Amino acid sequence: MQAAAELNAVQFTDLFKNIVGETYVFADAESLNNYAHDETENLHFIPDIVIKPRTTKEISQIMALCNKHKIPVTPRGAGTGLSGGALPQLGGVLLSMERMNSIIEIDERNLQVTTEPGVITEVLQNAVKEKGLFYPPDPSSRGSCFIGGNIAENSGGPKAVKYGVVKDYVLNLEIVLPTGEIMWTGANVLKNSTGYNLTQLIVGSEGTLAIVTKIVLKLLPHPKYDLLMLVPFNNLANAGAAVSAIFRAGFTPSAMELVEINALKIVSKFVDSAVVPVTDEMEAHLIIEVDGNHMETLMAEMEAIAELLVQFECGDVFFADDAQQKAELWKLRRRVAEAVKIDGYTIEEDTVVPRAELPALITGVKTLGKQYGFDVVCYGHAGDGNLHIRIKKPGSIYSLNNPDVIPALQALFKLVKSLGGTISGEHGIGLIQKPYMDIVFDEAGLQLMRGIKKVFDPNNILNSGKIFDMV
Amino acid sequence: MQAAAELNAVQFTDLFKNIVGETYVFADAESLNNYAHDETENLHFIPDIVIKPRTTKEISQIMALCNKHKIPVTPRGAGTGLSGGALPQLGGVLLSMERMNSIIEIDERNLQVTTEPGVITEVLQNAVKEKGLFYPPDPSSRGSCFIGGNIAENSGGPKAVKYGVVKDYVLNLEIVLPTGEIMWTGANVLKNSTGYNLTQLIVGSEGTLAIVTKIVLKLLPHPKYDLLMLVPFNNLANAGAAVSAIFRAGFTPSAMELVEINALKIVSKFVDSAVVPVTDEMEAHLIIEVDGNHMETLMAEMEAIAELLVQFECGDVFFADDAQQKAELWKLRRRVAEAVKIDGYTIEEDTVVPRAELPALITGVKTLGKQYGFDVVCYGHAGDGNLHIRIKKPGSIYSLNNPDVIPALQALFKLVKSLGGTISGEHGIGLIQKPYMDIVFDEAGLQLMRGIKKVFDPNNILNSGKIFDMV
Repeated sequence: MQAAAELNAVQFTDLFKNIVGETYVFADAESLNNYAHDETENLHFIPDIVIKPRTTKEISQIMALCNKHKIPVTPRGAGTGLSGGALPQLGGVLLSMERMNSIIEIDERNLQVTTEPGVITEVLQNAVKEKGLFYPPDPSSRGSCFIGGNIAENSGGPKAVKYGVVKDYVLNLEIVLPTGEIMWTGANVLKNSTGYNLTQLIVGSEGTLAIVTKIVLKLLPHPKYDLLMLVPFNNLANAGAAVSAIFRAGFTPSAMELVEINALKIVSKFVDSAVVPVTDEMEAHLIIEVDGNHMETLMAEMEAIAELLVQFECGDVFFADDAQQKAELWKLRRRVAEAVKIDGYTIEEDTVVPRAELPALITGVKTLGKQYGFDVVCYGHAGDGNLHIRIKKPGSIYSLNNPDVIPALQALFKLVKSLGGTISGEHGIGLIQKPYMDIVFDEAGLQLMRGIKKVFDPNNILNSGKIFDMV
Repeated sequence: MQAAAELNAVQFTDLFKNIVGETYVFADAESLNNYAHDETENLHFIPDIVIKPRTTKEISQIMALCNKHKIPVTPRGAGTGLSGGALPQLGGVLLSMERMNSIIEIDERNLQVTTEPGVITEVLQNAVKEKGLFYPPDPSSRGSCFIGGNIAENSGGPKAVKYGVVKDYVLNLEIVLPTGEIMWTGANVLKNSTGYNLTQLIVGSEGTLAIVTKIVLKLLPHPKYDLLMLVPFNNLANAGAAVSAIFRAGFTPSAMELVEINALKIVSKFVDSAVVPVTDEMEAHLIIEVDGNHMETLMAEMEAIAELLVQFECGDVFFADDAQQKAELWKLRRRVAEAVKIDGYTIEEDTVVPRAELPALITGVKTLGKQYGFDVVCYGHAGDGNLHIRIKKPGSIYSLNNPDVIPALQALFKLVKSLGGTISGEHGIGLIQKPYMDIVFDEAGLQLMRGIKKVFDPNNILNSGKIFDMV
């Protein structure tokens, strides 16, 4: 903690122990190492100290102390991020939210839940489901990620296409400002025109503006039924075009996922699946789900969608017959990222374009791959135009400044921008997309963001150096 | 324009005429007077000059000039606001957006529309409906308000209960900063985790941060059918309780409006309606709409809702049989505000609470009315917990500092806050709710807003003095 020469490391450690208790401050090598990485490839930064607070008040005291002494603080959820947002690249305090893990209240009368940020997303989803309620945003990592991290990144997931992303469910947030002040951003209401939307400003701000300590989320009645089908296409661009046609025809599926055949082949090696026939003449599959309260309506919708898809030269549609087949299909989809990563595909990009531009994006990505000598694999939330792209190049390992990778990513993001899109749909910018922000924002926009950051964090101590540099 | 002593009024007028053309700069008494008020009662402020630009570039030049000379600028849509947000209380330039009235593109492939801000909301809705598309937010003033004003206030309307408010449809905005810089806030995509959400910061900022010059909105497929019913209740609080029960039972109506019997009696005098039987033993009516693509499903839903309502001691349910009856019912609902205003009820408050707190709010409001000697009438978007409240007191005319009114409103807003709610659901704060902001935000929150304002508008020229004071 070089920024704070007036006290030594031992003295600071004692001050932190006074706040959270002896047991929850860590400076041993193993602990520090555990918090030095997230799910972003090949990045490793050791914090000076790890603190695990339990209460908002403790966090407030930690922040006041760090602000006074200009000590960098990096807040961290479950460490499942894919943009390096939780990495302590400046050292300092790593503030783990893992002990802030209580669901405070499920308000069945108002269809709301109030929770602490350290609750695992799937735990929260299951808890409200037991009451017949539904919290839709479900990133692939939902079994391990924290709801607080989802707020920080404005996460999405397969259901976003019908139900929206995290920002569409956050009603109100208790936050601790970098100065230590505690406040609520809004009110527990469905409509709010009372001053600037501080709530929405915090959502997706990647822990750079404030630390979220309580979260009020809107819930929905849980839909009673869902149906799932898998549709193979002989042509990848056709699959992309089909996506747009389904929405244009008036259908709103609750999921609309695309998996390229290369990705499916790889994941099939890891997940033992009988349901997906993989043959060589296929280029991509769509996974389409509809949900609602009336089974007959859903059956009719599924059939109408399947009928519509014939004109896009799809193969035989596979309908998941029961809960087990559905689970198997979803498991396959959710494991794609992990499988292709193990297979050597690295850097999960998170491009997003207007839905109908998906075929242009897919075609463009393949061309860029050839041009720059990468193998490319595509999959993702096609219904939102949110395409994950991973690349592989024998002998090349990713680093932030890899000379092979930078020009290829620049070209990719320029393509995305030219299609009306942007560089992150649900992962955030963090450390690894930061160098590309000027492709999608001009200087005026970046200056506004820097100005806002300074309003919240005058000493630039909170997750500093993420999203943009302050210069 | 006292702030700019270095040039005289004639010289400024000439500079503005150079930018927008001779014909679009007005300083005659009648023109100035036309722009001195909005739909907020009894407020009247004369601008020094009215300018009607046609292009983003003209607005940029106007702002650069005004910023240089620190001239106050008040942007204005159609002037239908209910919080005084478009009133030029500091004089200076009134910037009317009425000539920025083109729908630029309806993108049927991506279900998006790009529009200028001066398009009337209903015109926009009808234009996209012709393509089978749906833009749901529909404030009561939709026949005259501008879409740009809706962005400024984050407007709602009856459909918000199922479809959300304006903020849920805004994907991207072209804005002119107070310094004259032109930029886009985001991208035309459904998911976006790329930097701070500047788009959502602009929505609902009441024209204090930037001037919106182009708007990209998400559209939905237009639902094929809707059904409408009117349900009388003998007890106002029971009607409120029924609202919450409907959602808890898993229904999501596309509208759920409450009109108190006093309001209904008044509006019935203005709208010749055969459909609504008004009898003395009723205290309130709910207007409930469901929509979707499957008529049978809707019929079943309507019946199930009607059945559920019996336990709340409702009277005979009236189903609107055809398009004409539906239109009549909606006309009745939309004219309530105007009718009660003519009847002497003034100050339309815009309280919003968690849905299930509606009975407590209604009961509390009635108690406060008695306590402070006001007649009170309630109506609004019950499904969102968004209750409009108007008061009447013989001999008392509303003004910003009316000594009779202030303590009553303070008590009302404290009640709302205690119920987890806030002071504006869809009208904004503007001038008239500004004195009450400290009831719902503590100093830390207001300071953040002031800081953000300063980042966007360093000279404090743009719609200054709205929402909060800069002190």
